[in-house]
Amino acid sequence: MDTIRIGMAGLGTVGCGVLNLFAKNGALLQERCERAITVTAVCARSRTKDRGVDLSGYKWFDDPEKLARSEAIDIFVELIGGDEGPAKAAVEAALSAGKHVVTANKALLAKHGVALARLAEANGVALNFEAAAAGAIPIVKTMRESAAGNHVTRVYGILNGTCNYILTRMKDDGHSFDTVLADAQKAGYAEDDPTFDIEGYDTAHKLAVLTSLAFGTEISFENIYREGISTISSEDIEAADELGYKIKLLGVALRTETGIEQRVHPAMVPSENAIAQVDGVLNCIAMKCDFAGDIMLVGPGAGAGPTASSVVSDIADIARGNILPTLAHPAASLEPNIRARMRAHEGGYYIRLSVYDRPGAFAAIAQRMAAEKISLQSIVQKKGHGKTPAVTTDQAPEKPARVVIITHETTEDAIRKALEAIEADGHVDSKPQMIRIERL
Amino acid sequence: MDTIRIGMAGLGTVGCGVLNLFAKNGALLQERCERAITVTAVCARSRTKDRGVDLSGYKWFDDPEKLARSEAIDIFVELIGGDEGPAKAAVEAALSAGKHVVTANKALLAKHGVALARLAEANGVALNFEAAAAGAIPIVKTMRESAAGNHVTRVYGILNGTCNYILTRMKDDGHSFDTVLADAQKAGYAEDDPTFDIEGYDTAHKLAVLTSLAFGTEISFENIYREGISTISSEDIEAADELGYKIKLLGVALRTETGIEQRVHPAMVPSENAIAQVDGVLNCIAMKCDFAGDIMLVGPGAGAGPTASSVVSDIADIARGNILPTLAHPAASLEPNIRARMRAHEGGYYIRLSVYDRPGAFAAIAQRMAAEKISLQSIVQKKGHGKTPAVTTDQAPEKPARVVIITHETTEDAIRKALEAIEADGHVDSKPQMIRIERL
Repeated sequence: MDTIRIGMAGLGTVGCGVLNLFAKNGALLQERCERAITVTAVCARSRTKDRGVDLSGYKWFDDPEKLARSEAIDIFVELIGGDEGPAKAAVEAALSAGKHVVTANKALLAKHGVALARLAEANGVALNFEAAAAGAIPIVKTMRESAAGNHVTRVYGILNGTCNYILTRMKDDGHSFDTVLADAQKAGYAEDDPTFDIEGYDTAHKLAVLTSLAFGTEISFENIYREGISTISSEDIEAADELGYKIKLLGVALRTETGIEQRVHPAMVPSENAIAQVDGVLNCIAMKCDFAGDIMLVGPGAGAGPTASSVVSDIADIARGNILPTLAHPAASLEPNIRARMRAHEGGYYIRLSVYDRPGAFAAIAQRMAAEKISLQSIVQKKGHGKTPAVTTDQAPEKPARVVIITHETTEDAIRKALEAIEADGHVDSKPQMIRIERL
Repeated sequence: MDTIRIGMAGLGTVGCGVLNLFAKNGALLQERCERAITVTAVCARSRTKDRGVDLSGYKWFDDPEKLARSEAIDIFVELIGGDEGPAKAAVEAALSAGKHVVTANKALLAKHGVALARLAEANGVALNFEAAAAGAIPIVKTMRESAAGNHVTRVYGILNGTCNYILTRMKDDGHSFDTVLADAQKAGYAEDDPTFDIEGYDTAHKLAVLTSLAFGTEISFENIYREGISTISSEDIEAADELGYKIKLLGVALRTETGIEQRVHPAMVPSENAIAQVDGVLNCIAMKCDFAGDIMLVGPGAGAGPTASSVVSDIADIARGNILPTLAHPAASLEPNIRARMRAHEGGYYIRLSVYDRPGAFAAIAQRMAAEKISLQSIVQKKGHGKTPAVTTDQAPEKPARVVIITHETTEDAIRKALEAIEADGHVDSKPQMIRIERL
């Protein structure tokens, strides 16, 4: 068979990882795919930057769109990044020109995935993106191919290595969020501006794509409820541990009677569950299937090698002629993503309150829970936690006590109403902390 | 495109599961594969047996070979079982007649996989077997496709649900192996004759196939070192727990300097490792890749639904035209499987001895270890364990003490020599227990 010729735009960590993989394992790949596969052309912003790889063997392009349309390539690999601009323009140009596309760009897919899937299918080419969701973990292949005969009812996972690293270090070292974040920034596990990771946007991009693959619905990033991990305190980590849970930033999507529930937030997961053992920068994704049952995949979610491996597996699929509908179902048959109201979410909750130690305070809190028909599984009170208020009278200050409540199954609506009322009652010295329990 | 027509031989649990999947999710499968896929003919030993499924819509065959060659089918699904006889004859007939084959038969592949792969490739057809290794877990697809650009250095896993269920129950309930096995037999998790599962043959069949996929070597079931779980006692489970390990029956294959090391045996795995949380009938498989890193997949390893899901994913691949070399590499380029000597295995060891409480006994044991240059990480002695010998003299009986030793990294050869010498010295009242530690 003819040689498969690759044009690659973007020569950052992942791009150089792909070139390294071809240099080291190109012969293996060729043997396994039973045809020659070669990178023939590259494109990046700077031609002269020292990247530690020899670019002399590749045709150079300054313009990614020009590379995307070039007669000299069969597959366009997009590693530019960004949900608009040159990445989007180049991918559209490649697909329109009948070139297969491989991308690691989750932001682009979360925003324009359905339109790009339509364009790919209209042109009879592949749009592959294994590297866009959880690095080396073969979740796209598993959902598109292995689960082909299954209805998926739930997909969830730890999709951001930075957050998982921070939460793991907070648990292991007992340090505060801010301390661990600063360490992670020094170690290169977190960006200088960490917002994108720690506030859950990156997780939400990946979840948006996985939801579509799981349920055959259009991608909807806007329909995702999102909370980050910056409000998680050492006290929460410690209380979780005492109660037999670990705190993980999860992306979760499930079908409910009123629509698709998509949410990204810190969650308490039972310590004995395998997902609780997925620590450090590792990622994992689990799915519930009607025939296959519960499948969980664990692996590195980022990094040059793991991401390059997924880019190359996408290339191998194209070289072998395994061209599939981009989003597991033909784009024309994707259903709209109907948003389930977050207020209708059902589950258990962890509540942490810093309560002034006054007669009646506890009763008032219990009364507010009861009024919303929330039944409590456990209440643990510890003295002497929280901030000590400044002494403003002759009396001794009221020492706040830490109260941790685990609720039985209830609704998000009931919890929010109860917590608003508790806060308004004035028995607590700070905003109540609320973390959802994920029974899995 | 033309309808894909399936002929299925074997209508046991899995066969009926496949028919149920087509009945329930056939339309979904058709939409995702963008073509009609239908079971047209079936074959089993008894036509009249009540299986709870309606067979009236399928053409009936009494002879699986005749079905395999029939003009009325495109894919032959073999669910007969057995490593010789009708299963082998029918698969060979189908491949020779240019039919694609899907099978769940690990015994057949462990014994004849390479010859069948050659036959499939000579005839330009697929021989798919996702269901043969760990039920619903998409390990074959992951190794054949996702890892295409990687050299794999190690593959290991919990591959037998019966053993994992027994070990989990022993740990959770504190019962003996015999008690839990009897319960498992009653609950349908173990066969009346459990040898095939508990002595590790089933794990070895799966490992033989996974080794080939991982390393590009010919399948060699004979080269697998194998031990079962029937010698694991409650004392071992308890000691493992105290030391921070769990005992799991593992299949492990790795490349060593002298060849491929393939082994099936109970192993101590660190409790904080995710694999230690894979409990009950669940299976898991992990692989170390040079670019992708460590990937682990967890899921149900058996059962009608999970196995049917994998059979159907194999069918979907064929329907979509994704036809690959059976054993990840073209059969002609598989390397011979050179066996690494088990005596050369390197690792830590757990040793449990029941030692007569005599002056010098302990010193003699330590001396035997030192003579083999085995350095010890920890020694824990507990009084009053083990059998109390019958009183044969006027003196009080010697009460044996339980001694548990964890060694640093050493060789299988050194450990075996030391234990033989310790046993010959006569200070122990029973054969020493030895369990390998798997650091993973």
